[in-house]
Amino acid sequence: MPAAIDLQAAPPEFPFELVRGEVQKVEQAILDQARAFDPALEGYVSYVCKSSGKRIRPALALLAGGATGGVSDDHRKLAVILELVHIASLVHDDIMDGAELRRGAPTASAKWGNALSVLLGDMLFAHALDLASEFDDSAVSRAIARASKDVCAGEILQTQRRHDLTLTVSEYLRVIEMKTAALFSAATEMAAYLNPEGRVHCAALKNYGTKLGTAYQIYDDCLDLVGNEQSAGKTLGTDLAKGKLTLPLLYLLESATEVQRSKISKRIVNGEPMDTSILAGIADYAGSIERAVQFAKNMLIEARSDLIALAASPEKSALDQITRYLDKLLDKCRA
Amino acid sequence: MPAAIDLQAAPPEFPFELVRGEVQKVEQAILDQARAFDPALEGYVSYVCKSSGKRIRPALALLAGGATGGVSDDHRKLAVILELVHIASLVHDDIMDGAELRRGAPTASAKWGNALSVLLGDMLFAHALDLASEFDDSAVSRAIARASKDVCAGEILQTQRRHDLTLTVSEYLRVIEMKTAALFSAATEMAAYLNPEGRVHCAALKNYGTKLGTAYQIYDDCLDLVGNEQSAGKTLGTDLAKGKLTLPLLYLLESATEVQRSKISKRIVNGEPMDTSILAGIADYAGSIERAVQFAKNMLIEARSDLIALAASPEKSALDQITRYLDKLLDKCRA
Repeated sequence: MPAAIDLQAAPPEFPFELVRGEVQKVEQAILDQARAFDPALEGYVSYVCKSSGKRIRPALALLAGGATGGVSDDHRKLAVILELVHIASLVHDDIMDGAELRRGAPTASAKWGNALSVLLGDMLFAHALDLASEFDDSAVSRAIARASKDVCAGEILQTQRRHDLTLTVSEYLRVIEMKTAALFSAATEMAAYLNPEGRVHCAALKNYGTKLGTAYQIYDDCLDLVGNEQSAGKTLGTDLAKGKLTLPLLYLLESATEVQRSKISKRIVNGEPMDTSILAGIADYAGSIERAVQFAKNMLIEARSDLIALAASPEKSALDQITRYLDKLLDKCRA
Repeated sequence: MPAAIDLQAAPPEFPFELVRGEVQKVEQAILDQARAFDPALEGYVSYVCKSSGKRIRPALALLAGGATGGVSDDHRKLAVILELVHIASLVHDDIMDGAELRRGAPTASAKWGNALSVLLGDMLFAHALDLASEFDDSAVSRAIARASKDVCAGEILQTQRRHDLTLTVSEYLRVIEMKTAALFSAATEMAAYLNPEGRVHCAALKNYGTKLGTAYQIYDDCLDLVGNEQSAGKTLGTDLAKGKLTLPLLYLLESATEVQRSKISKRIVNGEPMDTSILAGIADYAGSIERAVQFAKNMLIEARSDLIALAASPEKSALDQITRYLDKLLDKCRA
């Protein structure tokens, strides 16, 4: 049976102080979900709920709710549903990546094997959709189902294009919009939707979520290339090892001469740790990392502009602060 | 890209003549779903939709609709959703079982690997739930999500109890009610629900689906033990090889003396092909197969009694005929 895990050991990366109390309530509600399952299955569910997910999507839903009229039980439920979908996708990701550890704890697939983990992810996802169907308005179920479909479709598209040096920047952006930004934007859009007076802000908050999610993924991609393992708290260089082409490398390929391109391609195809370090160095030297960082920073400016029409509130300020926090993280990728 | 597959090559096992035209329409609608995906993903979706699923659940939904007021587009949509969920579960089952072939065609995992197949199953499932959310009434989404959760939970419980000789008959029945009967009963219950005048029959048709699904799984379990591979058209003896204890064996264990039990247990744990043949012989000799067949036949009598309150209609007769057809198949397990 699962070992105890200290939740406090892994605080959210983002400045979510304003909703920390609310996130804690949602945290408890996520852990309570385990009780909705057969006693023989409870242990699996509570283990993965405790050991995966940074609660970014719940925090965004709670902040967007607060910024558009207030946080109700419906927002808390939306937050739980989004995180369950995210946890389900992490359980399946870990199977696909053959990952042994997530945030220092053994993954479900490492503990119980792939067969059980496939089913566990499915069951969590089905449970999330079951919760979503409790809303009278089927728009919530629909948004969750579509965002989930986008997450999977984005992952498949990415898997298909591994080691494919013909991937374009716009194809890459479409993939990350699906695999990462879809759940961010579902969080902020649906949170506005759940407040009758907030519906007018749905489109703007959907955009905010999309831009923030895209910038977040680009940051994560840059970090994987140039980050320091100790401060990042995770293994880096894994994208390249798996043949994933990320924005800095796509920019590097784009700007290279024919001769340079052939040299870079060899290192990308090899994907050895040393190649990663050298490619990071070349990408830095050629200005490609700067270009990726700048692209993400522009996304964050757009995300902030999506907040303009919202009435002033502490939650609006927090949504703004999140973009500024991510902006600072992006600066560190330049060093 | 997927090879063409002759749909007609694998007709439904059940006597669905009455709704063959309707099932064909649903068949087309299932194949049309592929177009709801990115062009790069269409091929995967259409391959698994063409090569998996016997359309039993769609046929049941259409017959139950016809028997409770008539078949509408809502029933056709329900039929598509149920089959997509079933196909998604087959894609994941084949990963877990390491299956290379399904109905003579390579499985998705054999063609494209496990990583892509995990995502493909997830995406189909999310798409099914997306379609379900198009119903104004969230009861449909809820029923689909819950049935899906049951299917996964039943599979996990079964996986947990592999090679476990302490499994009881009632635990076994609970597992198959979840993993198989849940989608059967969702098909018949929700079909009645979609006809305003049919809602009074929801409970009876839910029971019908549960009993039919349970009897079907017991038939499948008996076939795996005593069937002829050629006439069954699939590899047999796989349950035991995987450590799955099915009803005939549970009855055999139940009725055995201490000494006999120890002998049987050894063969079950070994699970070699010869052990399967010998266990089948012993189960036949000891009357355990007869007992399992009789149990399933009683389920079918109960299923028929659930139809009594329905007004006479060709579809009601067809639902009755299905139970009689399965009854005849069960007779063959006695030979």
